[in-house]
Amino acid sequence: MKIIVIGASGTIGKAVVEELGQRHDIVTAGRNSGQYQVRIEDSSSVAALFERTGPVDGVVVAAGDLHFGTLADMTPEQFRIGLDSKLMGQVHVALAAQHALKDGGSITLTSGIVGHQPIRHGVNASTVNLAVEGFVRGAAIEMTRGVRINLVDPTLLTESLPQYGEYFHGFETAEGRRVALAYARSVDGAENGRTYRVW
Amino acid sequence: MKIIVIGASGTIGKAVVEELGQRHDIVTAGRNSGQYQVRIEDSSSVAALFERTGPVDGVVVAAGDLHFGTLADMTPEQFRIGLDSKLMGQVHVALAAQHALKDGGSITLTSGIVGHQPIRHGVNASTVNLAVEGFVRGAAIEMTRGVRINLVDPTLLTESLPQYGEYFHGFETAEGRRVALAYARSVDGAENGRTYRVW
Ligand SMILES: NC(=O)c1ccc[n+]([C@@H]2O[C@H](COP(=O)([O-])OP(=O)(O)OC[C@H]3O[C@@H](n4cnc5c(N)ncnc54)[C@H](OP(=O)(O)O)[C@@H]3O)[C@@H](O)[C@H]2O)c1
Ligand SMILES: NC(=O)c1ccc[n+]([C@@H]2O[C@H](COP(=O)([O-])OP(=O)(O)OC[C@H]3O[C@@H](n4cnc5c(N)ncnc54)[C@H](OP(=O)(O)O)[C@@H]3O)[C@@H](O)[C@H]2O)c1
Repeated sequence: MKIIVIGASGTIGKAVVEELGQRHDIVTAGRNSGQYQVRIEDSSSVAALFERTGPVDGVVVAAGDLHFGTLADMTPEQFRIGLDSKLMGQVHVALAAQHALKDGGSITLTSGIVGHQPIRHGVNASTVNLAVEGFVRGAAIEMTRGVRINLVDPTLLTESLPQYGEYFHGFETAEGRRVALAYARSVDGAENGRTYRVW
Repeated sequence: MKIIVIGASGTIGKAVVEELGQRHDIVTAGRNSGQYQVRIEDSSSVAALFERTGPVDGVVVAAGDLHFGTLADMTPEQFRIGLDSKLMGQVHVALAAQHALKDGGSITLTSGIVGHQPIRHGVNASTVNLAVEGFVRGAAIEMTRGVRINLVDPTLLTESLPQYGEYFHGFETAEGRRVALAYARSVDGAENGRTYRVW
């Protein structure tokens, strides 16, 4: 199958490309990196991506920014960062993909453990991650042509400990290789509306 | 205690005012109705509300719009309706209230059953309702001065059957009087970070 991975150069994306690349034709996309450039915050940029790649069997999103900071001095503008990027970015991809994908295609989005397990400075992440979960739950029952949508909800990646470890003392991490299996469950499996938790 | 109810004239708000009014001093607020006018989508309007009421012991939000419509032709702009109103509206209230409330005050927000039980045309509601749940979970652990934040997650109100019944065949409804008890659990109780499901 031909699968677009948005965020292919990232910590999760690299592991997903390695896992799925064993048996699928991978199209890599990223903000500056990859075969195709896309800004998921911009719905017309997302639409253009699907036009340029032509019909594909699946899309994986492993991209999207969040704001980390204390609740006490968080501004609405800071709070919007995650809504505009990780939430609306993935919504843009799904709204376009439901029509652009081949029959029976799959959409795989990404949330994160902080939706269910809050951390200090993580209120934007908790909000956005559960929002994406709600989106997948609601969208799954309205998909047509056999198109499926699922979610991967990873814990902190072992590879991301240097970057985010300070926020996650006590959390068990998972290696990218293991997290990537959840994306394969979604892409190669037959389920719809599932959340694959890796924690 | 002195409690602001935003959306006091609404289906839920009226029941909340009746329940809490038995023992508390209620300040009613709404878009056009109530003692104070406020637009929760506008953070400066929310800030002005707390300035005008002076210090209070609690705020309840039973207001916020969603977009209902098919996924197949939903636009990003339609999807933003719920994010701007029901999600960011309640976030604006909580961000202001964490500082404006008296020590030990309470913030009570509202989600809805569609976050967990999806319905056709409900993807915006599923997204926004779980987002609010994530927000409360994340915000609760960062509250200071004994301020608490909780969520009420109601099923369809019996009183709202004429308006929304077509979307909810097979769902058990709850009377406003019963839903209002959950708001009392939050306002009069001592818990923080709880979701009170009424379904
Ligand atoms: N890493 C973790 O431990 C972890 C755990 C749970 C959840 N997550 C979530 O998983 C997602 C990916 O995380 P990551 O750590 O793998 O990220 P990362 O290493 O920072 O990589 C991000 C990838 O996404 C691309 N990208 C960034 N912004 C983009 C945009 N606006 N439009 C399109 N592509 C964009 C980047 O492309 P360029 O390199 O060209 O900029 C890069 O390929 C995030 O949403 C994160 O919250 C991560
Ligand atoms: N009704 C249900 O069955 C049900 C079930 C689950 C969840 N919910 C949720 O509960 C909330 C309230 O629902 P409801 O049915 O009680 O609503 P409603 O009857 O339509 O009443 C809405 C109330 O909120 C006020 N309001 C509307 N927009 C506002 C704004 N932008 N800023 C400030 N106040 C505003 C209205 O004031 P004005 O009258 O002055 O405009 C009114 O007092 C909604 O978020 C809804 O999704 C409802």
